Amino acid sequence: MPPEDRPVAPSARTKVLREAHRGVYDRASIDAVLDAALVCHLALIDDGQPLAVPTLHARIGDVVYVHGSAASRALRILRAGAPACLTATLLDGLVLARSVFEHSINYRSVMILGSLREVDDPDDKLAALEAFTNKLVPGRWAEARQPTAKELAATSILALTLTEASAKIRRGPPEDADTPDGALNVWAGVLPLQTRWGSPIPDPELRPGIPLPASVRHLLDEDAADAVSGPSLP
Amino acid sequence: MPPEDRPVAPSARTKVLREAHRGVYDRASIDAVLDAALVCHLALIDDGQPLAVPTLHARIGDVVYVHGSAASRALRILRAGAPACLTATLLDGLVLARSVFEHSINYRSVMILGSLREVDDPDDKLAALEAFTNKLVPGRWAEARQPTAKELAATSILALTLTEASAKIRRGPPEDADTPDGALNVWAGVLPLQTRWGSPIPDPELRPGIPLPASVRHLLDEDAADAVSGPSLP
Repeated sequence: MPPEDRPVAPSARTKVLREAHRGVYDRASIDAVLDAALVCHLALIDDGQPLAVPTLHARIGDVVYVHGSAASRALRILRAGAPACLTATLLDGLVLARSVFEHSINYRSVMILGSLREVDDPDDKLAALEAFTNKLVPGRWAEARQPTAKELAATSILALTLTEASAKIRRGPPEDADTPDGALNVWAGVLPLQTRWGSPIPDPELRPGIPLPASVRHLLDEDAADAVSGPSLP
Repeated sequence: MPPEDRPVAPSARTKVLREAHRGVYDRASIDAVLDAALVCHLALIDDGQPLAVPTLHARIGDVVYVHGSAASRALRILRAGAPACLTATLLDGLVLARSVFEHSINYRSVMILGSLREVDDPDDKLAALEAFTNKLVPGRWAEARQPTAKELAATSILALTLTEASAKIRRGPPEDADTPDGALNVWAGVLPLQTRWGSPIPDPELRPGIPLPASVRHLLDEDAADAVSGPSLP
């Protein structure tokens, strides 16, 4: 079966222990969170100090890529094969329960453990950069100027294979209706959190006569279609 | 001067080195990011493995609180005084440049380093829980059932003082207009990312006749007012 259909066996380290019913280990669910999250947080150890560093990521098949300046301190540490954790989190809504104690959020979070390796092959680097660019705005890669050899050399791309990973997902209404709290005269429900694109802001120094590109128009059209179909919790 | 007005001196560890012009060290900017971000990622070391754990946080003055089950493994590690890093990141938009290399995102991120301490005093725990609840939905604390002594005991609240912290902020248009790329026939600009509340979804088991509470109505009214004033990059 294609790699994306393989379940990821939970390891002792990625098995969700707290609220175990929220643990999800199938690749389709894990991939969906990784692909929908614009940024992730990379945990690494810098001289004994753990750091959580926000960064862009993109997935191709079994591999999640991150990139940055070749001179970045965090990337230097990761490139040496240090242990790392990549976490991507999406917020879907607030869960308002009848008691403050049961308040929660609906979210989807993926955690991947492993060591990253540097991507050296120029073709692989280009493929990863294309994935980054088209993840932000599908089709954008073909519209913008391609990287030069010098730009490629200045970019460090690191790869993390999806072998030890898990998702933790909370969805749905509050869970206190069947407790004594269910009799309280307190509103309970979910307040969905939605992300939308705003109106594009052209660069003040944009040359006159350059229209909004097809990639951005398409993204905004899709967004409008989503809005018409109404809010939905995943 | 009040603590919030004091700048946080950048330490060797929190000074922003890459793209140093994006480093921000004043408390007002740092607090604004922490208060606007619904979740943060906590980096900690678990048996040599760095982890980035998503969690809710709330700030009162100089202290950022996180909470969780008293039995949580991550909280057990942090409670023992292990070094930690709390990072909160907000995405404000995509920066579409004329070259793929210069594509970027507008974001605001805060990183705090330090060790967390457990909050034992019941009044302090209640104050932190109130901050959590009212950060999600202002005014919600007073509407919902208050915590019992048993619920309070089952909740572990940890505190991290804002002493070693920095923000990194990117805003504004792409930066390639004044390079040779500025002459390219490629659209460039910013695509703002906006977060909105969707329509509240009452708990399917909500008792009939309970109206939407004032807290949620107020939050939605504020959101509508924001939408009317139009998208704005911070």
